[in-house]
Amino acid sequence: MQVLENLNWRYATKSMNGIAVPQAKVDYILEAARLSASSSGLQPYEILVITDHKLKQKIKPIAWGQSQITDTSHLLIFAAWDNYTPERINNVFKYNNEVRNLPDSTTDEYRNKLLSSYSTKTAEENFNHTSKQAYIALGSALIAAAEQRVDSTPMEGFDAAELDELLDLKSKGLRSVVILPLGYRNEEKDWLVNMKKVRTPKDKFLTVI
Amino acid sequence: MQVLENLNWRYATKSMNGIAVPQAKVDYILEAARLSASSSGLQPYEILVITDHKLKQKIKPIAWGQSQITDTSHLLIFAAWDNYTPERINNVFKYNNEVRNLPDSTTDEYRNKLLSSYSTKTAEENFNHTSKQAYIALGSALIAAAEQRVDSTPMEGFDAAELDELLDLKSKGLRSVVILPLGYRNEEKDWLVNMKKVRTPKDKFLTVI
Repeated sequence: MQVLENLNWRYATKSMNGIAVPQAKVDYILEAARLSASSSGLQPYEILVITDHKLKQKIKPIAWGQSQITDTSHLLIFAAWDNYTPERINNVFKYNNEVRNLPDSTTDEYRNKLLSSYSTKTAEENFNHTSKQAYIALGSALIAAAEQRVDSTPMEGFDAAELDELLDLKSKGLRSVVILPLGYRNEEKDWLVNMKKVRTPKDKFLTVI
Repeated sequence: MQVLENLNWRYATKSMNGIAVPQAKVDYILEAARLSASSSGLQPYEILVITDHKLKQKIKPIAWGQSQITDTSHLLIFAAWDNYTPERINNVFKYNNEVRNLPDSTTDEYRNKLLSSYSTKTAEENFNHTSKQAYIALGSALIAAAEQRVDSTPMEGFDAAELDELLDLKSKGLRSVVILPLGYRNEEKDWLVNMKKVRTPKDKFLTVI
């Protein structure tokens, strides 16, 4: 019952107490993200880990002044590829085949299908797809953090264009999609901490056919 | 180390053996999805659980003939809201406030901000957003399944428009985004089962600032 217990323990922490998360726990959470599934195994996103306090102070106004941005020791920024390119796709397959000791031609048929599929789509369509893959990793990171009894707050409330500019993500072909401060709940100041978790009732969430 | 062990255990199973997953395990996996985080807690998606074999046979050609579609006992279809509407948003807040014994006006400021934010976006933009939330739940479901030692295969390889028509999702304001057969690996037939798991190396996946 670990996963359900962890999901029940976590909530979107609204106030953090500023205590630093031990690096080993941060590494664990990042590793859960890195091991996550993605479409064709392309992992079309990266994670920036912001520990520099001055940089967090610059990010805070871009994220609507939310206090967790500066009350976290480690601010994770999930940044997805701005597009699929042949170079990116080929590199992933080349690396996978190297690790698996397979000739690079092994995956040619599948790889070429992917290349032609993504090339017919706009950068925006492809970015929507890369973003979704990052959200699978977000799902993993939330559970891993909860397992480590580390609080976190998934945030979409920020100006992505401004954040991308601040972090010079465009030059890396990345766009920020979601940010996740890690830390510990401030029980006295957090209005959400004692609120009941509410989810869509099963009979509206599920349809069995 | 539960989460990392589970993530390392799982893989996108390419061949399943047809053995049925016990209902309790399916329920556990679905509950992990239901308890997942979502933007503003809206949970803008539903899950259809296909157990009917004839229906799975109809879905198989829509999903490029992939064998797992009919070799699964429970085929999960994640279907996201096709748009945000005031009715949908208001209903979530109303329900949340009821469960928490709060006057419905408690959340008016935030709710109205959301309403005006989503109303300026196109249905397609909103659908991209609802889809991403479903992917958080997909991330949870993959870990929950692995914890239960149930195999699964996240699939985007299907014709969403055809599947939506077959399942009459349009009338429910839903669009299929990803499907997930649950089952057990067929070790003899699965070409991927003994392949090394490959992920982007840490030095390319992470940037610490």
